[in-house]
Amino acid sequence: MTKALEKHENWGGKIEVISRVSMDTQEQLSIAYTPGVAEPCLEISRDKELSYKYTRRHNLVAVITDGSAVLGLGNIGGLAGMPVMEGKCILFKKFGDVDAFPICINTQDTDEIVSTIANIADSFGGINLEDISSPRCFEIEKRLQEICDIPVFHDDQHGTAIVTAAALINALKVTNRTMHECKIVIIGTGAAGTAIAKLLLVMGYSDIIMCDRKGIIYEGRDGMDKNKIELSLLTNKEDISGGISDALKGRDVLIGVSGANTVSADMIRHMNVDPIVFALSNPIPEIMPDEAKNGGAKVIGTGRSDFPNQINNVLAFPGIFRGALDAKATRITDKMKQSAVYAIANLVDDSQLNAEYVIPNVFDKRVSVEVSKSVYEQAKAENICR
Amino acid sequence: MTKALEKHENWGGKIEVISRVSMDTQEQLSIAYTPGVAEPCLEISRDKELSYKYTRRHNLVAVITDGSAVLGLGNIGGLAGMPVMEGKCILFKKFGDVDAFPICINTQDTDEIVSTIANIADSFGGINLEDISSPRCFEIEKRLQEICDIPVFHDDQHGTAIVTAAALINALKVTNRTMHECKIVIIGTGAAGTAIAKLLLVMGYSDIIMCDRKGIIYEGRDGMDKNKIELSLLTNKEDISGGISDALKGRDVLIGVSGANTVSADMIRHMNVDPIVFALSNPIPEIMPDEAKNGGAKVIGTGRSDFPNQINNVLAFPGIFRGALDAKATRITDKMKQSAVYAIANLVDDSQLNAEYVIPNVFDKRVSVEVSKSVYEQAKAENICR
Repeated sequence: MTKALEKHENWGGKIEVISRVSMDTQEQLSIAYTPGVAEPCLEISRDKELSYKYTRRHNLVAVITDGSAVLGLGNIGGLAGMPVMEGKCILFKKFGDVDAFPICINTQDTDEIVSTIANIADSFGGINLEDISSPRCFEIEKRLQEICDIPVFHDDQHGTAIVTAAALINALKVTNRTMHECKIVIIGTGAAGTAIAKLLLVMGYSDIIMCDRKGIIYEGRDGMDKNKIELSLLTNKEDISGGISDALKGRDVLIGVSGANTVSADMIRHMNVDPIVFALSNPIPEIMPDEAKNGGAKVIGTGRSDFPNQINNVLAFPGIFRGALDAKATRITDKMKQSAVYAIANLVDDSQLNAEYVIPNVFDKRVSVEVSKSVYEQAKAENICR
Repeated sequence: MTKALEKHENWGGKIEVISRVSMDTQEQLSIAYTPGVAEPCLEISRDKELSYKYTRRHNLVAVITDGSAVLGLGNIGGLAGMPVMEGKCILFKKFGDVDAFPICINTQDTDEIVSTIANIADSFGGINLEDISSPRCFEIEKRLQEICDIPVFHDDQHGTAIVTAAALINALKVTNRTMHECKIVIIGTGAAGTAIAKLLLVMGYSDIIMCDRKGIIYEGRDGMDKNKIELSLLTNKEDISGGISDALKGRDVLIGVSGANTVSADMIRHMNVDPIVFALSNPIPEIMPDEAKNGGAKVIGTGRSDFPNQINNVLAFPGIFRGALDAKATRITDKMKQSAVYAIANLVDDSQLNAEYVIPNVFDKRVSVEVSKSVYEQAKAENICR
């Protein structure tokens, strides 16, 4: 696919920083720059909140990576991750009218990443963390949110979780299931798997089993890090053990965020009748849609644009930050995430809902509008805005 | 001057981050973002230099401050300095077609500033340091240039020095002086004063006396920091002592970068005949132009736009970074600075040169073109390009 390389070379970068101000006369220069500019500086030094009034901060998000888990490419380093970060930034602009600026960090030391981002956070109205490997991503996000009074959001966790949860709501409708009876298996305990599990739990789903490369996560299992130990306490209440095929037996929903080709049609066959299969690994899913169908899957979602039900973060993050910035929210709460889930799910009208349409299309212009509105209102209701 | 506040509020930020790529179809999305974007990522992970081909880095400069010396406002902190940084960024775009992005740093600890900037430097093709107080600015710039393989340029030092040196070349012509006979006094030993002295010395000026608040700098004087000790060795070869009025006696050139109203007409009267007076403090110069004229000054320059001979950094930094970026220079050398000096000075044609026109106008479109060309060629000649 040399077309992507050729295009990237021709573009010469996918973002550009432009001026919102004309500076063709001495007078314009003396207002936008010295001596006039001293006034907004003094105002902000008097009251920090005025930075939202006199600078671009109110509409500006940093998209930051250390390059430790870029797409499915692994640890290629921050610099090599920049084409993805620039891509993310133009998605922010296109779908949320959010100015987003890409920053790659040249260290993978957790403490250094936290201090570096904290030291530049005042320049922005929000921080979107991107492609930082698990389990470091959990600590980095948590510590930054404690230090910073602006939203810090690791999209690989929460963006994926929000869109998956939205698709799941509609998939349950299609298959006549309720949240409470729904038995879920999540394959993958990294950033996405962990966030999906936690979001589904706070939403009221209660029966979740998770698998990593060694099989089912259960309390007391060997070789688990802090994150997996926490997951073992939150999920798998009957402490089942075994492999993926054991996990899937008699269950309703499979959510795969682990890697290519880990699931077979035969495994799907042993799930409950009309199972829901979201095989989200990219570019190659845990099981290809036609195989999942052979196994009897009723609703099938992937991360890909060439199959129905594309579960794509771009349905979430532009609207979420648009709403959070408009509300001047200081963080993005679980309830704000849930409000985004329902905003996305509700855009699929019952009259149109079917097994091949459980989630709006990426280019559906209503999505970011409705997501931002719901996130804005929830932030205001929670009283977490500056 | 509430007009500046009103304008800043209406602008809602002076910069904006836009997309250079249209993303209206699934195909465009799949080239600019996943899966196509994986290819430039892999190319860069193979060869870091390809970041200049596949991302915006080749045209991108960070404008970074810790807010410790913003304009004449002093230490108002990084966040309060942002309106200046945004202003600088739009000057970069307007005059150099350089994308510049403002970053304020929320610490004034030298080590932390250095590590923070070094950690994000890969995101940019150059670093413009701004409004960092002296003497910390010297160490921060030096250490960063050692760590980073991109140009690091503290504009308060070098931009001011370059434009001052350019104006001085032409002022010497107007007053029929040569560089070698020229006796200079610099009032102010901060970022600008230090850089002016050092640049003039490498250009071949040899007789410079510097003053700080305690008077003339001379070898062995009490109460000098590392920077002043170095200056005391480089300047004032006869080790004269005394105050500003002692320093000025019988000398040809006064360059003031210290603060308002430190020089009187009477002091000018005791300089050599037809002295050159550059009173660059802003907004209030060391001596007002009419007073300097009363004292007998022949050529008068200020930092202000409402008097002739405005010595303004904007004549230098956009073209310098334009040339350095185009050449993919890894640093900005003394010779590159000197080439910028002569490029600026030469734009004032001998036929037009007079006491009120020793430096081109800020809006003279030839300036950044000629500066960038000369800096580009010098960088190539020095073989410091990637």
